[in-house]
Amino acid sequence: MIYHPTRRAILSMIGAAAGTSAMYAAMTSLGHAAQSPYKGPIRLEGDPKGAKVLILGAGLAGMAAALELRAAGYHVEILEYREKAGGRCWTLRSGDTYTELGGFTQNVDFAEGNYINPGPWRIPYNHHALLDYCRRLGVTLEPFIQQNHNAYLHSSKAFGGKPMRFREIDADFRGNISELLAKATNAGALDEAVTPTDREALMASLKYYGALDDEFNYLKGDHSSEYRGWAKWPGGGASARPEPSEPLDFAAILQSRLWNKLVDADLVEFQETMFQPVGGMDRIAVAFEKQVGDLIKYNCKVTEIRQNDEGVTVTYMGSDGSGEPRTATADWCLCTIPFSILSQIDADLSAEMKGVVDSMPYAASVKFGLEFKRRFWEQDEAIYGGITYTDLPITLISYPSTGYQSDGPAVLLGGYAWDAIANQFTSMSPEERLKWAIEYGTHIHPQYPQEFKTGVSVVWHRVPWTLGCYGLWREREANYDKATRIDGRILMAGEHISYLPGWMEGAITSTLDAVSRLHDRVING
Amino acid sequence: MIYHPTRRAILSMIGAAAGTSAMYAAMTSLGHAAQSPYKGPIRLEGDPKGAKVLILGAGLAGMAAALELRAAGYHVEILEYREKAGGRCWTLRSGDTYTELGGFTQNVDFAEGNYINPGPWRIPYNHHALLDYCRRLGVTLEPFIQQNHNAYLHSSKAFGGKPMRFREIDADFRGNISELLAKATNAGALDEAVTPTDREALMASLKYYGALDDEFNYLKGDHSSEYRGWAKWPGGGASARPEPSEPLDFAAILQSRLWNKLVDADLVEFQETMFQPVGGMDRIAVAFEKQVGDLIKYNCKVTEIRQNDEGVTVTYMGSDGSGEPRTATADWCLCTIPFSILSQIDADLSAEMKGVVDSMPYAASVKFGLEFKRRFWEQDEAIYGGITYTDLPITLISYPSTGYQSDGPAVLLGGYAWDAIANQFTSMSPEERLKWAIEYGTHIHPQYPQEFKTGVSVVWHRVPWTLGCYGLWREREANYDKATRIDGRILMAGEHISYLPGWMEGAITSTLDAVSRLHDRVING
Repeated sequence: MIYHPTRRAILSMIGAAAGTSAMYAAMTSLGHAAQSPYKGPIRLEGDPKGAKVLILGAGLAGMAAALELRAAGYHVEILEYREKAGGRCWTLRSGDTYTELGGFTQNVDFAEGNYINPGPWRIPYNHHALLDYCRRLGVTLEPFIQQNHNAYLHSSKAFGGKPMRFREIDADFRGNISELLAKATNAGALDEAVTPTDREALMASLKYYGALDDEFNYLKGDHSSEYRGWAKWPGGGASARPEPSEPLDFAAILQSRLWNKLVDADLVEFQETMFQPVGGMDRIAVAFEKQVGDLIKYNCKVTEIRQNDEGVTVTYMGSDGSGEPRTATADWCLCTIPFSILSQIDADLSAEMKGVVDSMPYAASVKFGLEFKRRFWEQDEAIYGGITYTDLPITLISYPSTGYQSDGPAVLLGGYAWDAIANQFTSMSPEERLKWAIEYGTHIHPQYPQEFKTGVSVVWHRVPWTLGCYGLWREREANYDKATRIDGRILMAGEHISYLPGWMEGAITSTLDAVSRLHDRVING
Repeated sequence: MIYHPTRRAILSMIGAAAGTSAMYAAMTSLGHAAQSPYKGPIRLEGDPKGAKVLILGAGLAGMAAALELRAAGYHVEILEYREKAGGRCWTLRSGDTYTELGGFTQNVDFAEGNYINPGPWRIPYNHHALLDYCRRLGVTLEPFIQQNHNAYLHSSKAFGGKPMRFREIDADFRGNISELLAKATNAGALDEAVTPTDREALMASLKYYGALDDEFNYLKGDHSSEYRGWAKWPGGGASARPEPSEPLDFAAILQSRLWNKLVDADLVEFQETMFQPVGGMDRIAVAFEKQVGDLIKYNCKVTEIRQNDEGVTVTYMGSDGSGEPRTATADWCLCTIPFSILSQIDADLSAEMKGVVDSMPYAASVKFGLEFKRRFWEQDEAIYGGITYTDLPITLISYPSTGYQSDGPAVLLGGYAWDAIANQFTSMSPEERLKWAIEYGTHIHPQYPQEFKTGVSVVWHRVPWTLGCYGLWREREANYDKATRIDGRILMAGEHISYLPGWMEGAITSTLDAVSRLHDRVING
């Protein structure tokens, strides 16, 4: 009884119904190739005849390069500073120990299964290369919730310091600007800008967009409450009739500046649908490591990079400075070491490349993973995933996008601060930092003190192997091309060699490009 | 090394930092009780002394009532028309057979693990009673993706019939109205409506909201492309520089009316975060059935409902009309039978109640579950979950919110039509219906004919046990209270006795209210 038409049958049916031109128009609109420099798995054709590539750094850039180069017939070796792979694609969970520059050591004692991603923590749908590797390497993804209408927008200087629900600010702002524009239009202020035909459509669109009434007013009532939320929410049975809520004063919204986060989730990098790997971001690193782990030498601190017309020689010792210096040689070197670190290594680079390496500052930032005894944000406040924004120095609180409604402790991102704020933490102890994060978070969630269990902080400019969060370009337009060039026998890859700084997609697409160009050089000279 | 402060220590620290009044302000803003008539699990105190309640219908309303009444000490019996519980909380998966009114039978032959929810398919974060039952009964939830910036808005009459990405229409509409309002403001058109101080904040907010440039224009450039998407998307390595995209003509957007879905996901019922049970909506029904299945008599068609001062007597026979009529008696009857069905049953109801029962139409609708050989919407078009809207009669296509990036066949909701359109299917065969859904869907996804595997349709007004999708109130204000009253020894519950028609939350909160009032009557007379 189930319908299994042949393709031919349906194509002819559609052709008749839609017209060939409509079909063609639809078909040419397809394919997401246009969305990304990533055109699918790279093909490195031609025999590299035993050429060897030495890769510095076993982050995603280094490991993706190793995977593709070995598949193309190269000899590959990776030197990695840490005891494990992944770089900033990193997850801290129970039992992990992390020692930062200066010696502070934190032992993570989250409950089993809980974790925090100190580095990248979300994957946009348009990061095609990374998503494709996740697919190929079997990394299971689940949605990361960026936008949450029931999370808060908070200003310590507005609405008495009370956190406001996103939906309220959002609906009221949209309602009020729609009303203002409708009134300006009706008053003839747009007669020059909008034709009479379009004016009618504009007014209809504003009425819908702003939840306006028939007179184009944004007012307390069922209509606005369907967007901003109700004073008494609808339910069932007797006395279930909902009661509309009172919109906020528009001037108060304007002066609060809480509108300054309303369309952040409409940026392509934060639009739905976003993802995270099930179990922590490092599931991606682990999946790569499964493929190329046999090529990685761990605990290697690179001290010197030499090159001549014949090849590259890299000197390294133990990460803790122990052991005799050893050397690795290769025909080519793919260097994914962050410029913040590379600038401190004695390396044969052209003056031009050296200039870029030495002049790239790295972002200072700090992230807090706070574990609480229970999911009070879900249980008390109906916030399931998503982000609360605040003008307090923690800047945001992001609630876990997994394990909804589960009992027991859960970890949230208790702060993500940058630059001057982050720099305050340089010499602060982990205990002091947590105190600070809890103190500010309590302004938004007074349950904090009672429910707090344990926490960890990562101050990125104190991370020994990167000394910063990501590469900040100064005058990228002028210098970007210099950094991408094959510099003798060395070329650079990583998030810093991309227009997606700080994103794993930047690291991956950078490395795929580097590998392709290197291969072309090897094959075609 | 990890910081474990005492509660007292932190409270005093916060008190000092934030000031007691700020803390109090924050604390009183908490609690979601105000969001819902649902105040947590109901407490039925007092001994019902062996009173018996007969429940008609083992949908969510009937089963939740049974669970609570038995816990309170009642004798409970449920009569259910079908061979299983759940009612409209229903999932069709491989091996299921469904026969509709008129005799059309469909055998569902989706691949293992694939399913479609013909009834409710998403759970808003503000449906607290339902979410609480999911928690208490161990139903695991995952996010349901409602909004997807990369899904389409489609009009057969605009943009040459080409589906447009949501993000393009969204960003361009917002940009243009922001620009228009900024210009009207600058031209003095709002001088009466907005004070000079607020005007400055308004201009700043519009610049941010609309991604306007320094002259308040919405133009092609990096800024607008960060919202609407790029012509060439940013990547890494050489030649990675992104290229901005060209905004659409605003007049074309206005005339297309594609703006008419831009804020649908900002309705409280569709705001983030939404949920679905892992494995299909009927996991909720199954979880309830595990609790109260022993109270349910299946395959019982109620033919007569009698009541007097002493109690209620219900006559029933086999669902197929077979068997001798049997009777069940009780002190009270909670009737969750849809009024579309109840109106055809000989029942002792007051004239007032009968009037409401007989005059409630039920919504006609149709839903299509289409299985395709692969997730071409993900693989070719980077659409992961979410909804495409169209002016074609299928009205929408909703992509699966689970199993992202997996290989093999997947099921999408291939159409969800209402009223006049849905009525066209009354006598159409399942094969013809699928042909129709595929034909229209091909306008949006030309891969349809090649990738289609199998499908199923549910025409709700042909579902024998409900004859419609949900109860449509006529003159609810005038009649609602009549339907909620205890009518002698009978009272009604279900989504139709709620201000959340068609939602499971309506059914649950309706039944909790009914049960509470019934208990009060039993205990206090």
